[in-house]
Amino acid sequence: MTHRLIQAARRQPVDRAPVWIMRQAGRYLPEFRAIRANMDFLSRCKTPEIAAELTLQPISRIGVDAAIIFSDILIPVEPMGQKLTFTDSKGPVLPEPIRTLAQVEALRVPSADETVPFLGEAIKIVKRELAGKLPVIGFCGAPWTIAAYMIEGTGSRNYAWIKRMMYNEPQAFALLMDKLTETLIDYLRHQITAGADIVQIFESWGGALSRKDYLHYELPYVKRIIAGIQDMGVPVVLYMNGGGHVLEELADSGADVLGVDWKVDLKDAFDRVGDRVALQGNMDPCLLYASPERIAAEVKAMVQAVGDRPGHIFNLGHGILPDMDPDHAKAFVDAVKTYSVKQYA
Amino acid sequence: MTHRLIQAARRQPVDRAPVWIMRQAGRYLPEFRAIRANMDFLSRCKTPEIAAELTLQPISRIGVDAAIIFSDILIPVEPMGQKLTFTDSKGPVLPEPIRTLAQVEALRVPSADETVPFLGEAIKIVKRELAGKLPVIGFCGAPWTIAAYMIEGTGSRNYAWIKRMMYNEPQAFALLMDKLTETLIDYLRHQITAGADIVQIFESWGGALSRKDYLHYELPYVKRIIAGIQDMGVPVVLYMNGGGHVLEELADSGADVLGVDWKVDLKDAFDRVGDRVALQGNMDPCLLYASPERIAAEVKAMVQAVGDRPGHIFNLGHGILPDMDPDHAKAFVDAVKTYSVKQYA
Repeated sequence: MTHRLIQAARRQPVDRAPVWIMRQAGRYLPEFRAIRANMDFLSRCKTPEIAAELTLQPISRIGVDAAIIFSDILIPVEPMGQKLTFTDSKGPVLPEPIRTLAQVEALRVPSADETVPFLGEAIKIVKRELAGKLPVIGFCGAPWTIAAYMIEGTGSRNYAWIKRMMYNEPQAFALLMDKLTETLIDYLRHQITAGADIVQIFESWGGALSRKDYLHYELPYVKRIIAGIQDMGVPVVLYMNGGGHVLEELADSGADVLGVDWKVDLKDAFDRVGDRVALQGNMDPCLLYASPERIAAEVKAMVQAVGDRPGHIFNLGHGILPDMDPDHAKAFVDAVKTYSVKQYA
Repeated sequence: MTHRLIQAARRQPVDRAPVWIMRQAGRYLPEFRAIRANMDFLSRCKTPEIAAELTLQPISRIGVDAAIIFSDILIPVEPMGQKLTFTDSKGPVLPEPIRTLAQVEALRVPSADETVPFLGEAIKIVKRELAGKLPVIGFCGAPWTIAAYMIEGTGSRNYAWIKRMMYNEPQAFALLMDKLTETLIDYLRHQITAGADIVQIFESWGGALSRKDYLHYELPYVKRIIAGIQDMGVPVVLYMNGGGHVLEELADSGADVLGVDWKVDLKDAFDRVGDRVALQGNMDPCLLYASPERIAAEVKAMVQAVGDRPGHIFNLGHGILPDMDPDHAKAFVDAVKTYSVKQYA
């Protein structure tokens, strides 16, 4: 059976739009917090049974159309040779940020099979549990996004350090991006081999680049990653936060689906990308703070704007917020099931 | 004499593009930090002689074509009745954030002449010192941007509290926006009366809104502010961070100039707004970390992209960063003077 998500990703006919939620396996779920209390973040990612359990939590509770493996975009960083810690208050912290060519040269291009076997194991458990009922989404971060963490050392407002390296140490920057690109191709292949039915590349921070810089310093690497997994036959979603200014170029990246944030007008976006890609998104995550009635009305308006065009996958425009009421997430998913219409090829 | 900045703002012919830098009176200047060491941020804003001195510091040092009055977009908040503090590490903190209708009802619509006379005084000193050689820029924050600070209590990543109020307490939100709008009209009129030759509205955070929400929850108030000062005859710059998705609508706001961030392609933007407005911007502030040669090359490329179209004011796409080398700011300004060309009407 071909899943609704996979069909929509390929712009094939579906009975209604598929729907899932970025960060659906996350802190907003009380049952997630219960497991979280006993185990630090990285240990949860690295313990296949736990990661699988967290992956499956939102399936019945929220009623989404896919499971996205519980993990983190920074998982490849440790095998490359950089220390990584997570704190509850500040998120990821890399205590020894990469700032020099010598540091970049010292980084490895690790084998995922050898260094992150827990990820494939978790995917296999999820696949077994789902027994073909729903597809599994694998994922990685986009290279500039991961490089930003590696160079800044944590989340950033201005991305001053990575941009300094881009502009002033082009050799170090290019070598880091090369190593990340090779690492991420292997990392996605590992997930697909384990059973991922579709993969998403998270470009969380590349939206901090001008179009000119994005096309020069990031898009070629993203394209290489997509080309590097094309033979495995699973669709690729390229999600970009703040990517409205490069939508046409993303549509030619080789990705099957573009994930867009809520600052992109979905109807305009369909007009801009034409029949080259499907689109995923894009309600403002903060709209889930509104009443279930309001949430349903927003979903209905989005359905009316998009119409019966092929290739729309419902999602938020960014991850669900950790203090969100799970019932409001369910209201969103229920509204998609109620209002979304058949999509024709 | 009509200044280059004012002519370009009106899309009139100029011998070359005018240039200034957002936050040009700021921490990146050693002479600014010298004064800063002795006085807290708000006291500097409220002491006309100090504010005037800080305003004038970048004029000879950097060679910009305008002076922007040293102040802060949150200055109107105290007269409205909300406590405001500034910390060196966290920036503005409003310890009693506005969350309820009762709190909004308790806010005043203050007279600027009565509550912020220091601002007009500072403008008068600057005008006297400049003796007509350069124009003076007055400014305010856009209402949603100020409301975000008032409701969140500090800078925010997700704007969860203000969006909650927008969606769930529409009466409280609308009353706050009404009061801010009236306050800001009077606040800008005070600055223009004191001698401001042009004013800029800083929409720092409105880019967190979807187009639909921006048009519903913010743009009508921005338009009212612009209409409320139109009789005073000075051009209005509307700067928006992350506003690429609403550029056409901003062009119809009544503003004379749109300030755009570096994620907007300047040539595209000119095509999108046509002859309705001038454009101000928009080099990535982080490009000033690059070498003076690279900075000059980027300026030259921007000039070539824009050509001799009327109505381009050079600036960065956001404020200059506090750790920037002042010589690199000067390299930017020098490059504009070297490479920019005559603009024809």
